[in-house]
Amino acid sequence: MSPTHASPSNDCLMRTAQEGVVTLTLNQPERFNALSEAMLDALQTALDDIAQDDRVRCVVLAANGKAFCAGHDLKQMRANPDEAYYQALFARCGQVMQSIVHCPVPVIAKVQGIATAAGCQLVASCDLAVAASSARFAVSGINVGLFCSTPAVALSRNVPRKRAMEMLLTGDFISADTAAEWGLINRVAEEGELDSAVASLTASIGGKSAVAVRTGKAMFARQLAMPLEEAYAFAGDTMACNMLAEDVAEGIDAFIEKRAPRWQHR
Amino acid sequence: MSPTHASPSNDCLMRTAQEGVVTLTLNQPERFNALSEAMLDALQTALDDIAQDDRVRCVVLAANGKAFCAGHDLKQMRANPDEAYYQALFARCGQVMQSIVHCPVPVIAKVQGIATAAGCQLVASCDLAVAASSARFAVSGINVGLFCSTPAVALSRNVPRKRAMEMLLTGDFISADTAAEWGLINRVAEEGELDSAVASLTASIGGKSAVAVRTGKAMFARQLAMPLEEAYAFAGDTMACNMLAEDVAEGIDAFIEKRAPRWQHR
Amino acid sequence: MSPTHASPSNDCLMRTAQEGVVTLTLNQPERFNALSEAMLDALQTALDDIAQDDRVRCVVLAANGKAFCAGHDLKQMRANPDEAYYQALFARCGQVMQSIVHCPVPVIAKVQGIATAAGCQLVASCDLAVAASSARFAVSGINVGLFCSTPAVALSRNVPRKRAMEMLLTGDFISADTAAEWGLINRVAEEGELDSAVASLTASIGGKSAVAVRTGKAMFARQLAMPLEEAYAFAGDTMACNMLAEDVAEGIDAFIEKRAPRWQHR
Repeated sequence: MSPTHASPSNDCLMRTAQEGVVTLTLNQPERFNALSEAMLDALQTALDDIAQDDRVRCVVLAANGKAFCAGHDLKQMRANPDEAYYQALFARCGQVMQSIVHCPVPVIAKVQGIATAAGCQLVASCDLAVAASSARFAVSGINVGLFCSTPAVALSRNVPRKRAMEMLLTGDFISADTAAEWGLINRVAEEGELDSAVASLTASIGGKSAVAVRTGKAMFARQLAMPLEEAYAFAGDTMACNMLAEDVAEGIDAFIEKRAPRWQHR
Repeated sequence: MSPTHASPSNDCLMRTAQEGVVTLTLNQPERFNALSEAMLDALQTALDDIAQDDRVRCVVLAANGKAFCAGHDLKQMRANPDEAYYQALFARCGQVMQSIVHCPVPVIAKVQGIATAAGCQLVASCDLAVAASSARFAVSGINVGLFCSTPAVALSRNVPRKRAMEMLLTGDFISADTAAEWGLINRVAEEGELDSAVASLTASIGGKSAVAVRTGKAMFARQLAMPLEEAYAFAGDTMACNMLAEDVAEGIDAFIEKRAPRWQHR
Repeated sequence: MSPTHASPSNDCLMRTAQEGVVTLTLNQPERFNALSEAMLDALQTALDDIAQDDRVRCVVLAANGKAFCAGHDLKQMRANPDEAYYQALFARCGQVMQSIVHCPVPVIAKVQGIATAAGCQLVASCDLAVAASSARFAVSGINVGLFCSTPAVALSRNVPRKRAMEMLLTGDFISADTAAEWGLINRVAEEGELDSAVASLTASIGGKSAVAVRTGKAMFARQLAMPLEEAYAFAGDTMACNMLAEDVAEGIDAFIEKRAPRWQHR
């Protein structure tokens, strides 16, 4: 795809693109893909680039190795025992998470192994998530004396509050099946079927009108934060605007004529 | 029942009333009960009438034919390619949905067949919902290039956000069982038992004090939108006021005397 | 433990303390542990004391007898047919519920028998809840003509809205299994295993750093009420502050050295 898509992968984050699907792969398996300063910077840069690139249809956030992501880099944190450092670090991390929420296209987490602390937060921050059946999830900062406060923000907006509190206070792992039952992830893939489960979602999204997908991603989180009347006014205007896209005329005509639509904006 | 209850049914919406239960039946099965301008007007008129009628105990929103409701009338929309028209249409539709939320008595969706797009939004907007086991639900506007923005408002207030996003981005159907598991509907009725499943809910509500039911309907959505402290202050005042109703004295006395209450306000 | 811990139990509420776990036991089984004025006062006093006591690690809210709590004392309410009395009563009750939410340590409901109306609200207000498999839950005020408005505040922040509305409008009981499935409670204990199920949670929390547990309890509900950006800013600052606790240095070092941490603040 584009030059932007082809921005060189760096040491910790690989970037590949195929037919509008950008895959960002956390690539420090020996460090359990911890969210070091370098990893956070790489993620921020990649998300900023994607936000500028009209050709991207969706993003897959994946990881190499036995772990999806083990959260912050504890050694790096211990080496910088300074409140200003920590404030800047958590602000940077929160910015990455919010860049996922505000990314103009859907972001899908593809999870194998463990997703702990800020790694679990990454999953919670994505729009959709698919996990291998052996994947496990925890917000385990409490085990080292550090309550997972920023992961709690994302987690508590995904799962009912007593379940979130149990995870946060005990630090215990939950299975992929439990994560799916509680709403933290969408689907569990059997052994060897994680790639195809994610591909079925990217193919479904890739087959839709890009205007419609981007419209939806941009409006969903915003309307959810509004009171009902305001949300309806905003959503109604958004939908009226969406109706004027050429794609909708084609989509409705195709539907009425019982044929596949030919989107302008793919 | 009353003259208001007996307001003539019109072409697209049938109205019947029995012992305080008003049933509104979408009645354009050949058009999959699409929410045309005429259908939206008929629903708004019926809901406005019900809001003025003290004798109504609850409302059942039902449909004739193989579909519950297939959402907006796509042909009518294509025939009016004008932003002002669309803004007015979605505002009108949002008004109908909010009139269900603000209806002074509970509204129960009785769903058979498919409930798609704004049809799924109707179900989500009701207080309670029962579906036939063969019913299916989707927010499928994305398939014609139109993200279901206004349905997303109602859907995302019923089901966890990753599930809502999956439905909105893929346009895929979910089964009645899945809808019940996710919280979009309350109960699934086996083949041939949809009427009796809805009747058990209307009988339960009909057996309660009308003051209590109306008090609850009026306070529930309001308190949910408030911060906790404000919600408690509001709910406490509401409950103190409810305590002064004659029905409560009778209800508590009957409870203590282990007999059935005789409500004043039925 | 401390003198505060040892504050004499009174007629309606027993207080015991062991290794930082304070157990408050509703102790009017012959009155189904109704939330009489005296019971509410005893709970408020106990919660106020606990809020001042740094040695408390968590609170268990339990009950003696066949019922956990049957809600308000209906006879007492009928004996005071006065709006000002009711306003004061519900304000006092709402204060107790909010004192659980704002308690500086986690509060765990330990439920046997029935938890109805404000008794169900008590469970919903706790951070965690474990119930015997035979326990049952209802918001049954509607059966005496009094919609459970204040219980609705807590319930609707625990379970999806259509489920909350069904419970509130029908007054029907749900089983412990259903309560767990819907998110009202965390775990169901088999016959004879309620004590050990609660003990496993208190042991887990007791094994964590007190600073981390208190940090988490104080931030969780607050951040959940905030818009996303504000929640992240607040959580990031909270976490940076938490990082400076001696316990975190020890916790991370212990993690890196693969040994158990020795907390300063237990």
